[in-house]
Amino acid sequence: MVLVNGLWLENQKLALRNDLADPEPAAGESLVRVTLSGICNTDLELCRGYYPFRGVLGHEFVGVVDASPDLSMVGRRVVGEINAVCHNCSTCNAGRTTHCENRTVLGIVGRDGAHADFLVLPTENLHVVPDSVSDDCAVFAEPLAAALQIKQQIDIRKADRVLVVGDGKLGLLIAQTLAATDCDLLVLGRHESKLETLAVRGIATTTRPDEIDDRSIDVAVECTGNRSGFEVARKAVRPRGTIVMKSTYAAEMTMNVAALVVDEITLIGSRCGPFAPALAMLETGAIDVVPMIHARYALDEALKAFEKAAEPGVLKVVLERHA
Amino acid sequence: MVLVNGLWLENQKLALRNDLADPEPAAGESLVRVTLSGICNTDLELCRGYYPFRGVLGHEFVGVVDASPDLSMVGRRVVGEINAVCHNCSTCNAGRTTHCENRTVLGIVGRDGAHADFLVLPTENLHVVPDSVSDDCAVFAEPLAAALQIKQQIDIRKADRVLVVGDGKLGLLIAQTLAATDCDLLVLGRHESKLETLAVRGIATTTRPDEIDDRSIDVAVECTGNRSGFEVARKAVRPRGTIVMKSTYAAEMTMNVAALVVDEITLIGSRCGPFAPALAMLETGAIDVVPMIHARYALDEALKAFEKAAEPGVLKVVLERHA
Repeated sequence: MVLVNGLWLENQKLALRNDLADPEPAAGESLVRVTLSGICNTDLELCRGYYPFRGVLGHEFVGVVDASPDLSMVGRRVVGEINAVCHNCSTCNAGRTTHCENRTVLGIVGRDGAHADFLVLPTENLHVVPDSVSDDCAVFAEPLAAALQIKQQIDIRKADRVLVVGDGKLGLLIAQTLAATDCDLLVLGRHESKLETLAVRGIATTTRPDEIDDRSIDVAVECTGNRSGFEVARKAVRPRGTIVMKSTYAAEMTMNVAALVVDEITLIGSRCGPFAPALAMLETGAIDVVPMIHARYALDEALKAFEKAAEPGVLKVVLERHA
Repeated sequence: MVLVNGLWLENQKLALRNDLADPEPAAGESLVRVTLSGICNTDLELCRGYYPFRGVLGHEFVGVVDASPDLSMVGRRVVGEINAVCHNCSTCNAGRTTHCENRTVLGIVGRDGAHADFLVLPTENLHVVPDSVSDDCAVFAEPLAAALQIKQQIDIRKADRVLVVGDGKLGLLIAQTLAATDCDLLVLGRHESKLETLAVRGIATTTRPDEIDDRSIDVAVECTGNRSGFEVARKAVRPRGTIVMKSTYAAEMTMNVAALVVDEITLIGSRCGPFAPALAMLETGAIDVVPMIHARYALDEALKAFEKAAEPGVLKVVLERHA
């Protein structure tokens, strides 16, 4: 039995381990040798107890298929959808497979994740990465798919006034996907340097919430995961407007429900999204992700990498595997 | 100058007054002699300080036009939309007139209401009541329109599993409007006697939240205005389901936003609705409202009427005018 290296979370403590059992794919699953994995805010929230996960962390990755029941996949460079689903429950039967009642989720719920030498996913979850898309780009497929989920859920029309609140990793990805809709987009952030990466692409940005007229925004996308970000979104959105909740919230939040009712506001939670259009955007270069990589570490420096990723203003931190 | 009787709210104190100034219609407004007015939960919430209103309470009424710039309206029996709007602001121009930035709202915001001898509304707000619709029916036009607003906001499809939480006045009206959609409807309430009025119309009811399967409901309509009702709705609704917030909430409410995001739930606030289909439903008898009148008082007994309306289990209390 080969022993595997990986970053283990247990009782909100992270530890590098080199004694993990070689993952055994079940029927229909493939073994993937991870090339590069990305640290997501959800990883950081899991370390803070957002959800009681025990196992290998990580759900953003690119890798190479090492073993698969589908022999045509062996040796292919892949990314993967993170929800492993049953196709049998009423939720799957209703077509909402990412909400499968029996799902495991890579590095989040009941399934060891991507910050390791190897991972296992159902073969159906894997998407071959086009040759022209580098590993550095492909590792963004999962968060980019999550960003694109917004367009699956709500209709954003040309000239709609859309506000993205937050200039973190997800906020910057979402801003770029929304810029492709011809909406009237504004991104509110705290870091001039991050906003500059959008400004050079012609996207309007501001660091000043007071510059946003009250009740002027059709759709606000809340990407900060904190109450003050929500309050900015709430204040900015017009009557009958929509607030998309697109973040990992660790805690309960108090809101003025009376005002939501009077203004007939829609709140909508948004999670995982479609991989195919995400890969297509990466392939055409419609989105610029590589400048978002702020630091690179080897897997055996993962603890340092997590410290770096938790620093204010730091965007994507990736974990490299050296052959 | 004629002095007018009315029920006055000031600093959360109700008082019957007989010294109110004769209302003076402004340009485009009509004077309506009120025949019958209904006490709404919003009236009770205003007495508890939900919103700092000072003036004559009441926004559900039927009456007869006493004076109008549209002479064809004089003498007609009418009900009226409660938002008096400017048609000039950006919200009005966008077609969301009930959210007009400069609106007054009958008996709620900046405009004396219906629990008086007379009221004033823009003539455009008035709807003539068909002869076959009694005053007892017509006084329900406003809350019935509010119930119908749900169907304006969300698409309820045949066989959708819909849960109405609450068997108060609004819950019972909403249940009857939803029953007309051929959805798979269940109403959760606390009072067998109220639920019985739905059961005789073939609507499924229960008093037991534990009989509702978790995550089984497509659309939940929260009509209780309290946290426990919201929690029942939240637990019942399926991933990517919708919770309609259809009540007057007096306070802030804490909710688990993380779970809303993970389950991609939609919350939507819902307020005033369309009068024309409400009057049409009353005319065809598609809805049965008169049994919801639990007590009748003269206007000069309004304080007793408000006490009655606040008792648990009491549905509509109306205030009659005696000529």
